[in-house]
Amino acid sequence: MKFVVIGGDAAGMSAASRAKRNQPDLDITVLEKTEDVSYSACGMPYNIADPGSRLDDLVVRHAQAFREKQGIDLRTGHCANKIEPSLKIISGKTIKGDKFQLPYDKLLIATGALPIIPQLPGFTLPGVLALKSLEDGRKIKNFIAANNVKKAIIIGMGNIALEMCESLRARDIDVAVVKSRPILLPWMNEKLSGMVRQELEANKIGIYDGHKIERISQTENGLKVGCADMELEAKMVIVAIGVTPNSEIASAAGLSVNSDHSIAVDKTLLASDEHIYAAGDCADAYNIVTGKKTWIPLALRANRAGWAVADNITGRKIELDGIVGTAVFKVFELQVARTGLTMAESKEAGFDPAEIIITSRSRAHSHPGNTTIGVQMIGDRNSGRLLGVQMVGKEGVAHRINAPAVALHRKMTVEEFSQCDLAYAPPFSPVWDPMLTAANQLLKEM
Amino acid sequence: MKFVVIGGDAAGMSAASRAKRNQPDLDITVLEKTEDVSYSACGMPYNIADPGSRLDDLVVRHAQAFREKQGIDLRTGHCANKIEPSLKIISGKTIKGDKFQLPYDKLLIATGALPIIPQLPGFTLPGVLALKSLEDGRKIKNFIAANNVKKAIIIGMGNIALEMCESLRARDIDVAVVKSRPILLPWMNEKLSGMVRQELEANKIGIYDGHKIERISQTENGLKVGCADMELEAKMVIVAIGVTPNSEIASAAGLSVNSDHSIAVDKTLLASDEHIYAAGDCADAYNIVTGKKTWIPLALRANRAGWAVADNITGRKIELDGIVGTAVFKVFELQVARTGLTMAESKEAGFDPAEIIITSRSRAHSHPGNTTIGVQMIGDRNSGRLLGVQMVGKEGVAHRINAPAVALHRKMTVEEFSQCDLAYAPPFSPVWDPMLTAANQLLKEM
Repeated sequence: MKFVVIGGDAAGMSAASRAKRNQPDLDITVLEKTEDVSYSACGMPYNIADPGSRLDDLVVRHAQAFREKQGIDLRTGHCANKIEPSLKIISGKTIKGDKFQLPYDKLLIATGALPIIPQLPGFTLPGVLALKSLEDGRKIKNFIAANNVKKAIIIGMGNIALEMCESLRARDIDVAVVKSRPILLPWMNEKLSGMVRQELEANKIGIYDGHKIERISQTENGLKVGCADMELEAKMVIVAIGVTPNSEIASAAGLSVNSDHSIAVDKTLLASDEHIYAAGDCADAYNIVTGKKTWIPLALRANRAGWAVADNITGRKIELDGIVGTAVFKVFELQVARTGLTMAESKEAGFDPAEIIITSRSRAHSHPGNTTIGVQMIGDRNSGRLLGVQMVGKEGVAHRINAPAVALHRKMTVEEFSQCDLAYAPPFSPVWDPMLTAANQLLKEM
Repeated sequence: MKFVVIGGDAAGMSAASRAKRNQPDLDITVLEKTEDVSYSACGMPYNIADPGSRLDDLVVRHAQAFREKQGIDLRTGHCANKIEPSLKIISGKTIKGDKFQLPYDKLLIATGALPIIPQLPGFTLPGVLALKSLEDGRKIKNFIAANNVKKAIIIGMGNIALEMCESLRARDIDVAVVKSRPILLPWMNEKLSGMVRQELEANKIGIYDGHKIERISQTENGLKVGCADMELEAKMVIVAIGVTPNSEIASAAGLSVNSDHSIAVDKTLLASDEHIYAAGDCADAYNIVTGKKTWIPLALRANRAGWAVADNITGRKIELDGIVGTAVFKVFELQVARTGLTMAESKEAGFDPAEIIITSRSRAHSHPGNTTIGVQMIGDRNSGRLLGVQMVGKEGVAHRINAPAVALHRKMTVEEFSQCDLAYAPPFSPVWDPMLTAANQLLKEM
């Protein structure tokens, strides 16, 4: 059997590696359009922060290792651009311009996501850079070095934008973030996002939300971001508005694609063709909280989905229940985490949500080094179920969020969660962990 | 109705406060044998570490506040020593020697636990001190100051003993720990307890396990701990072998008491008399993992049980399912955590346990500041259920343990846990959190 994988990052290489382990005689070809495979994209802001490291340090496993140690026919510089499901053939072009065709028995589309670039003037100027691939990272790092960048503008205020704030400040670059909508983190409870805003301000980030971006233009010394009501100048502009599923090849082949452009897959990761799977940031997933489809690009899911595809094509039937949308990012000293639904998502999914926002402490009341933790917790008035948690603080937030994440997987009620036997010692939490305090308070609201 | 509480710490004062909030006209008397109520006993090692702080800083709420702001008849210096369930009368003696009698309608026994002091010569000598009450903490702190202690011996190697190692080293006191059994942390997987041993050694703690302790004697300059095969000398000896339920008053009154001396209570915290409740470190609890009774003194459980008693006597029927045995402590830079069962406990409870011990990293592979995390995970071969997790590491361990704790509450299988959508960002974990790596590996063993 010939197994072909389009895309050589988390989902694609996880699938190829595991399929080969499961079935060593399997004929596997991976087509990767860039020269990079299997790298930690999420590590790029931290790598860029450190002029002494190279982007290649983020490579988890080199192409050569996949080829020589694992016997995977890994073809980098190979861009697939057409799938013909009826013929089971993929066509494409190499980086040198040579056309190729490849038959498959089973196909995995693992093409990931693409950065969203607004269709506005000036977004293709030199020095206007996005951050998605390792090559994007190299470009940013090289641009900073070559142009001695002392001032940068970041367009967007999502987690990558905010991680890049920290990254560039570590290089002593002045940073302004700008976006058209007048809201820092739209998914976040305002009191909690206020803590994030404070942290950005404390680190001298210029925050310009609610300034309609119209164009980027060249100036004598660099670039100018023109908004409806103001202008910002800098040497470099990072565009970090968000990402979108890279699914054109799938929709062109007639596969089911959702309105958000994610490829529709079932719990076995099969797309709408019995020989084609999709996994990673290009594919959708079930949201266990709502029971409905969702698209949330998550590295863990990509790896897990890659494994599941490998198992399924090698004869072990694996179904993935889905995700609950657990995510965390760091912005300077703050940890920002969420799992499950926001208030808006809860309402949209048909729940009758109640919420509570509390602040508590990261350690026991008398313990030195204590810091504030903010928690938003949402529950459903009808069923009593826990629906979502958001958290912000300087310590313990990133790992605390996993407890409600597990609770969401098992559809626990807020009351059941409130009764959990969580760890306590004075250096690590109050006797009542902030999550339990939130649960206790939320029960009164429900 | 007259509600009487014996014991004014976590369980007792939680119950009294909440009962008064639930029913402001309730007649509540609390009898506390010491002068201290409502303090963070777990904070004492950290307080002793800091000569600039006072033990009174650990008081969460002062006696006066309970009396004046909450209208609770709080009688400190009142030692209850007899309960007559048939008459519903308590007798006792004040610190001044005056006898008292008190009738009750509902009674809560919240007498906590007592440190275990071996019945060996010399354990009552001056300078031989235990650490359980705030007064014990004051004695230790005063003894250090008055005697300019430069060398101490700790008898025992449990979590309080190890917390005291850190505490005394912070005061620049040389510390040796000694115990009769040849094992550092008996409940812990040996590979993981080896990490704890290394941390102690790195902090210049003399570790003497497996030396049968026979006596303590006075020397010219201090004290001498005599073992069968060696002697240790120091100015001060801390006895931290463990604690035992303080339940004599309950057994003398004919209440059901377990062989480990804990008072037997049902899920409503009722003891074997329809008017007498017990809560906190003197009472037992259901272990949710085994379904059987257990005795694990835990501060959170004490507070929660106090609340449940208050709710039950004021007309809201509350049942507590039980505990899973989640605990964490810090020893120098290490976080040591557990939840659920050990291998021995799993076998004893009738499971067919499989275990895995892995080491992984606290952050993404390329992220600076990465440290080792050791994880032991246990699952039941028959049911597939997760049974227990132990973890050691320098960061993220204390809060990570809460995720499997929640899983244990819901009797999740290892496979279900392995599929959980946990948080990932490079500063906080690898894509596959160490707990997921452990779960994936354990599945292969099962």
